[in-house]
Amino acid sequence: MKKALSFDIGGTKINYGIIDENGNVINNIKKINTPNTKNDIYNALKDIVNKYENDVDIITIATAGAVNNENTKILSSTGNLPPGYNEIDFQSLASNKRVIIENDANCAVWAEYKLGSGKNCGDNIVLLTLGTGVGGGIIVNKRLLKGKSGSAGEMHFAIKDKKRPCTCGFYDCYEAYASGNGLKNTAKEIYNNNTITTYDVINDVKKNDERAILAINEWQHDVSLGIIGLVNIFDPNCVILSGSMAAFIDYTKLNDFVNKNIIVQKTEIKKGYFDNNAGIIGAALFGFDKLKGGCRV
Amino acid sequence: MKKALSFDIGGTKINYGIIDENGNVINNIKKINTPNTKNDIYNALKDIVNKYENDVDIITIATAGAVNNENTKILSSTGNLPPGYNEIDFQSLASNKRVIIENDANCAVWAEYKLGSGKNCGDNIVLLTLGTGVGGGIIVNKRLLKGKSGSAGEMHFAIKDKKRPCTCGFYDCYEAYASGNGLKNTAKEIYNNNTITTYDVINDVKKNDERAILAINEWQHDVSLGIIGLVNIFDPNCVILSGSMAAFIDYTKLNDFVNKNIIVQKTEIKKGYFDNNAGIIGAALFGFDKLKGGCRV
Repeated sequence: MKKALSFDIGGTKINYGIIDENGNVINNIKKINTPNTKNDIYNALKDIVNKYENDVDIITIATAGAVNNENTKILSSTGNLPPGYNEIDFQSLASNKRVIIENDANCAVWAEYKLGSGKNCGDNIVLLTLGTGVGGGIIVNKRLLKGKSGSAGEMHFAIKDKKRPCTCGFYDCYEAYASGNGLKNTAKEIYNNNTITTYDVINDVKKNDERAILAINEWQHDVSLGIIGLVNIFDPNCVILSGSMAAFIDYTKLNDFVNKNIIVQKTEIKKGYFDNNAGIIGAALFGFDKLKGGCRV
Repeated sequence: MKKALSFDIGGTKINYGIIDENGNVINNIKKINTPNTKNDIYNALKDIVNKYENDVDIITIATAGAVNNENTKILSSTGNLPPGYNEIDFQSLASNKRVIIENDANCAVWAEYKLGSGKNCGDNIVLLTLGTGVGGGIIVNKRLLKGKSGSAGEMHFAIKDKKRPCTCGFYDCYEAYASGNGLKNTAKEIYNNNTITTYDVINDVKKNDERAILAINEWQHDVSLGIIGLVNIFDPNCVILSGSMAAFIDYTKLNDFVNKNIIVQKTEIKKGYFDNNAGIIGAALFGFDKLKGGCRV
């Protein structure tokens, strides 16, 4: 059975581990802090690859940012990673193994599709990572939606007209409302308190605080608006919610509301199975499929 | 060279004609009024098929409404056509030729992709039909986006929070703002006059009426909001605008605004080439490709 040395590179941590074709983690997932410069990131990755390269068949990397259609490089800089991160020559990390990289949300949907909440659900899946921001990974007819350059699946579409600024430079995007930061900003308005954090809201909900409940209900409504739109656009077999904020969704209520308001056939919205390991496992599974010539045309 | 007897069935008219593999119309496109009952529609189609079936290789139909993934039947009733229209057994129209049906916006994007404004543009295309409503036809990696049941591409996603009702039963959908009816409803607010029609606005724009210019600018802004979202989601090579309202777009301004506010690579927004014949020609070209086993996996 093939094995991958797989990484998940985020703004704060780099997770890595050895994953087999069944999606099993061999030993444990290890973590290091993400270094502050592109050179230090490269050297940290290189050390790990040097150590494990001979034990595996492929090196795979889930990363923040858009990745080209050849899965060899990152297309543009990403806010949470040091300047020049996108210029890293990932291919040179390994001396005799293929290095395959893919966007983290795309890896997550691949993991869920192959072995997680999307297994046996069908071949059209929309996955949203609800975290500090919102990411998207979409499977259309068994393949990752990548678009002309590889950056498809960006969850930046206006859902309101309140002129709430978005990290992308535009305003009122889905991410500005449906993310953890979106919940925080909605709560700031409701509490009329500019120091409220996402954590405060989650905590206050547990204490039955009315303002917190109002905020989280409005947040879930905003999450549902984007899902209704995406379901009408993609007619997916299922929608999977991943990321830290996915735990705070009332799935029964969400399924009812979405299915009542779509005009395509009924769908199902579920929580992701792999939680924090979706990226690392998905990258590996995607890499194995890529070695076989699959994943997309 | 293969020939198709091709129909475009809309709520008001049925257009039909013989189309060859180069997309040429043999003789002229003919029109009849759409009959008022499903039986009368069936009989009208049957008479035409009887007359031409022996001259062609395939019967193709572009229709309002969602069509199943096998291209054999309509999935659900459509507002502009008589009750039971979706139950018509299209396959029985022909005695010895294949009958292939597809949604009209999907046919339009296929025509534009193969031989129109999308030719040589790339293999990822978003087409919007801006008419009384808004339709969508999307090509992902050389194939029509159909989804689990065939109804993908519905342009019903919230872009505002004004509680403007939409034909779909929900509110604030893209269609409610970006369609001809959307322009009308925006103009009603600006003119503070409930009797204004889309035609009045278009006419007043020509007279440099300030309210009309305000209305059409707001309409174009709303059109652009949906395009920005779709471009971020699909990262398409180009976006094509089709339908009667596509003539009223300022394409230079739209291209500037959209490309300034997307986070994926630059795209191009253009007017469709085939105008009213996109459906009828696209259905035929799709049918020819389907005979060859193409179109999608």
